Amino acid sequence: MACVKEKRIVKFPAKSTAIRFLAAQGAGEAEIRHLAGFAAPDVFHAAATPRGTVLFVPALEAARAAKAARGRAEIVTYGELAHAAGGRKGSPAENAALWLAAHGARAVRILPDAPWELVRAAERAGLAVVPEKGEISPARAVKTPREIRAVAEAQRAAVAAYKTAEAMLRASSVDACRRLLLGGKPLTSERLRAKMAETMMERGAYPVEGTIASCGDDAARPHECGHGPLRADESIVLDIFPRNGRTGFWGDLTRTLVKGKPSKELRAMHRAVARAQRLAFGMLRAGVEGRKIHRAVAAFFEREGFPTDTSRPGKECGFFHGLGHGVGLAIHETPGLREAPGRLPAGAIVTVEPGLYYPGIGGVRIEDTVLVTETGCRLLAPCPRRFVIPR
Amino acid sequence: MACVKEKRIVKFPAKSTAIRFLAAQGAGEAEIRHLAGFAAPDVFHAAATPRGTVLFVPALEAARAAKAARGRAEIVTYGELAHAAGGRKGSPAENAALWLAAHGARAVRILPDAPWELVRAAERAGLAVVPEKGEISPARAVKTPREIRAVAEAQRAAVAAYKTAEAMLRASSVDACRRLLLGGKPLTSERLRAKMAETMMERGAYPVEGTIASCGDDAARPHECGHGPLRADESIVLDIFPRNGRTGFWGDLTRTLVKGKPSKELRAMHRAVARAQRLAFGMLRAGVEGRKIHRAVAAFFEREGFPTDTSRPGKECGFFHGLGHGVGLAIHETPGLREAPGRLPAGAIVTVEPGLYYPGIGGVRIEDTVLVTETGCRLLAPCPRRFVIPR
Repeated sequence: MACVKEKRIVKFPAKSTAIRFLAAQGAGEAEIRHLAGFAAPDVFHAAATPRGTVLFVPALEAARAAKAARGRAEIVTYGELAHAAGGRKGSPAENAALWLAAHGARAVRILPDAPWELVRAAERAGLAVVPEKGEISPARAVKTPREIRAVAEAQRAAVAAYKTAEAMLRASSVDACRRLLLGGKPLTSERLRAKMAETMMERGAYPVEGTIASCGDDAARPHECGHGPLRADESIVLDIFPRNGRTGFWGDLTRTLVKGKPSKELRAMHRAVARAQRLAFGMLRAGVEGRKIHRAVAAFFEREGFPTDTSRPGKECGFFHGLGHGVGLAIHETPGLREAPGRLPAGAIVTVEPGLYYPGIGGVRIEDTVLVTETGCRLLAPCPRRFVIPR
Repeated sequence: MACVKEKRIVKFPAKSTAIRFLAAQGAGEAEIRHLAGFAAPDVFHAAATPRGTVLFVPALEAARAAKAARGRAEIVTYGELAHAAGGRKGSPAENAALWLAAHGARAVRILPDAPWELVRAAERAGLAVVPEKGEISPARAVKTPREIRAVAEAQRAAVAAYKTAEAMLRASSVDACRRLLLGGKPLTSERLRAKMAETMMERGAYPVEGTIASCGDDAARPHECGHGPLRADESIVLDIFPRNGRTGFWGDLTRTLVKGKPSKELRAMHRAVARAQRLAFGMLRAGVEGRKIHRAVAAFFEREGFPTDTSRPGKECGFFHGLGHGVGLAIHETPGLREAPGRLPAGAIVTVEPGLYYPGIGGVRIEDTVLVTETGCRLLAPCPRRFVIPR
């Protein structure tokens, strides 16, 4: 540790504004990825200082962090932090705060969803704490060409997974109880998900817990993953959101299919949802308020005879989620197409995902991820829009 | 919304102690799973009140939450919260805090890694905030028979994935550049991960970003996932940690294999790591300090001629991570086998994962997940301990 002892402490400029102090949890995970390209399974810390980004990591992660950051960040290990703190038995967050104070920091900015212990550590180190404004840094909301390519790459993995699932549904047969069979065994939500996962992972993308392959009444609950045998003549919702392991960027795609013959109601729902998406595409462009588009779609559904009712918790029906959300280093980020103020900037990437859900009938959702431009919007990866797959 | 308006507010008993106020982020995610069996892709909130667990969720999640909780929790939607808050435009966390205050809460307990905004919301609602002690609730650290079965189920999915990978390595051939080939194409980390994922997902378990299939120098960095073609005669680390989608419980398993002929150094490392694991198994039982076992393994490696050096950030070598961690509804939880105080309770589930890493030579880690008992420990799922796979 001799070299560590001799390190001279170079102080930050005296008049530096509040330094961003981050934990890799919640929005902080994506912010640190954005600053330094590094992520880890356990929470670690970072700061955006006048001398550049600093990553505070356990020795276990130091080599990976240095490789990922490639000169974009300085690495300080927990061992070095503890040494600098003079043997005090503080937590890594406390030692990182002391390190910032020793380098001349007076105040730190912290994200609202950062862990509370980060705030307490900063206060204990004598730092003033300022809440960070906004859910996402402006530099993250507007995507660079490289970032747009990264989302498109993740989106193509989602499209590939969709095609895998569609091919399995196409190849399946139907038994006397309307259950789908493939290779002599029931075709289940789990089997569909497993094959979609293989497809995505071969492309370096990771499906997380929650990939949706839901059928029938399950499909009428928007975030239900789906379990057990899939059935003919019912709606099957496939909601696929892979994250590229190398870049950290997400894609998001949903299609709804019926193997066999959809009911009249499901047909009408699918038609309305497809029209609602086109309506939204037509309104999307830089400068428009996201909530204006959300409201237009909600009004369209009402007008077309698809009412929304959220008065009975657990029995919601109609269109009862936001029309879309930002996609980037977080799967759900601002700007959104929902009940919140704010205009869409050119370069934002958002999903457009109208959906209708009626228990007893089923659910229909169609979702694509698009780039907002000055004059409109652009699909990041084309994907077929089939609805019916014949028996 | 008529029925909501007429709801009578039943106050908590006047003398109730501080109520646990939780956000589904960090440790809170696992705590809420433990209380109510529910999880969601976005952060939501919960409270453990004298009248039972309350989940605060968006309408989008209400049906799923009610189904998952099966009477173990009351569901209050964001719409109901906003209504109860009288149209104030607060965040869900603020409205949930106001709801608790309206029901007679005076103080709340909040986890240190809960989002800061939860604390600010509670304070704005006039609630006293008490930091929650300990990283994990005592009821979670000691596993019930049902929970032990759930970890064993996840662990069996990891074993199945390991066997898939071993079979692929066995079936592979080696080209002139020592690259592994399977089905005429290079066998890569990505392909191994994709097939392991399929195996796990067929068993209802989800591999998250980070499943490790690393080779050569990548294997010398413990958390490096591995990328590109796998090579003969080098160590291949497979670290597999699936989470069961239904139960939320994790498993954790690592094996190290060499296709072909390992170097003398790798052979010696594998022998030492296997012996270190047996040493730890021999010491494990209820009442022992976790750090005592960690230190015994660290001392064993030094004695056997495998020094640890963490003085050069990014170039760490030897045994430079904890010997093990608790496994349950979180993949890393207390109690651990590492430099931290505390004795192991009977019923704890921990990993035992000694490892040695030397850049230029490779990495070796062997990990199993075991139940701590009064008299020793019990493997949750057996898995072969092969090292060499012949060409």
